[in-house]
Amino acid sequence: MLPTPKKFFITAGSAEGKNHLNAFDNALMEAKIGNLNLMRVSSILPPGVEYCPQMEIPPGSLVPTAYGYIISDVPGEMISAAVGAGFSKDTFGVIMEFSGRCGKDQAEKAIKSMLEEAFATRGMELAGIKMASTEHQVETIGCALAAVPLWY
Amino acid sequence: MLPTPKKFFITAGSAEGKNHLNAFDNALMEAKIGNLNLMRVSSILPPGVEYCPQMEIPPGSLVPTAYGYIISDVPGEMISAAVGAGFSKDTFGVIMEFSGRCGKDQAEKAIKSMLEEAFATRGMELAGIKMASTEHQVETIGCALAAVPLWY
Amino acid sequence: MLPTPKKFFITAGSAEGKNHLNAFDNALMEAKIGNLNLMRVSSILPPGVEYCPQMEIPPGSLVPTAYGYIISDVPGEMISAAVGAGFSKDTFGVIMEFSGRCGKDQAEKAIKSMLEEAFATRGMELAGIKMASTEHQVETIGCALAAVPLWY
Repeated sequence: MLPTPKKFFITAGSAEGKNHLNAFDNALMEAKIGNLNLMRVSSILPPGVEYCPQMEIPPGSLVPTAYGYIISDVPGEMISAAVGAGFSKDTFGVIMEFSGRCGKDQAEKAIKSMLEEAFATRGMELAGIKMASTEHQVETIGCALAAVPLWY
Repeated sequence: MLPTPKKFFITAGSAEGKNHLNAFDNALMEAKIGNLNLMRVSSILPPGVEYCPQMEIPPGSLVPTAYGYIISDVPGEMISAAVGAGFSKDTFGVIMEFSGRCGKDQAEKAIKSMLEEAFATRGMELAGIKMASTEHQVETIGCALAAVPLWY
Repeated sequence: MLPTPKKFFITAGSAEGKNHLNAFDNALMEAKIGNLNLMRVSSILPPGVEYCPQMEIPPGSLVPTAYGYIISDVPGEMISAAVGAGFSKDTFGVIMEFSGRCGKDQAEKAIKSMLEEAFATRGMELAGIKMASTEHQVETIGCALAAVPLWY
């Protein structure tokens, strides 16, 4: 089997780019995960996972990551992305991502409500939340991205 | 290399949610794969893979999964998702996913025809099909999802 | 952790299909990666990775892959996809994907400019590029796809 991740951190970043993919790449760089091979997952914090905010991961590593992002080419538009890790007391947690044409306050509010629903669905108590968010006013082509990389 | 999966099962589920991602999450819960880290793959059944319908996978595991889904916020709309695993006699198989604004009969018919084309393209004989499907009439925000998780 | 890939190749292919997913599947077959379980990554060439154009990978393998594609059901439309691996002198590289309603010359031009921006962002010198591209005039439903599979 694929080994279950043991660590995580939370990050967010926004950037401009000359095109959609470079804007995404530049936002990854702002979030300090631009030199990794992100493999998108949906989106559970494994039981016993450890929060490691200063983790260094070698470039090119395959990194299971839950993320949300938005790219806009509408100058002046406000975009944002947020991600939240919701913890239980003694078992796994849940990760929720949000992105939209709004500010980061609204994005964070959405994440909180999404995590509450995710825990209610599972009949679990939401013991705590860690969140990262970013907002960005588009100049030409902008991207806002928030991510929870999982690691070992 | 990443280890090639040895087992699979097939599942489907539909649900409502307060927003798009929670509807997706709730549909995953209905399909009994909501507490996993699904890693989306396109979409081959490895040779010799074993069908294990009652498999229990620990929460937070990284699970290679072929899946299709649709989310709708049009009240009253009928949505469906289906997935089919097509088997050959003696080698690998092919997985096809479908989702659309229709009932599950139509979704299953689409899957059958997609698998026939996939096997014809490969010059292989389609020896059998396993399928799962779901349909859902949207109340507020609904999701229909069908998946083939691969495991070890 | 998941093992970091050590090899790569570059490929592209176009095809028609009776529906969107079969067009995608047929394009994968044209690109000789149709019998693999592609796991999409964003999109770094690990340091020291070796270029292996004739690599054979067993069917059903989990293959981390950076790819771009476009599917069109507009008869007569020209679609294309391109992918480029940009190398540094002594460390990791960057992969960029492009797809659009244009010919492959334009797709390759886009890739070159995207890689230049990606290296500029990182303050790295772009020492060389390997590229694959494809273009396709849609008959009924067509797909153009370009990919960089990473392997071991």
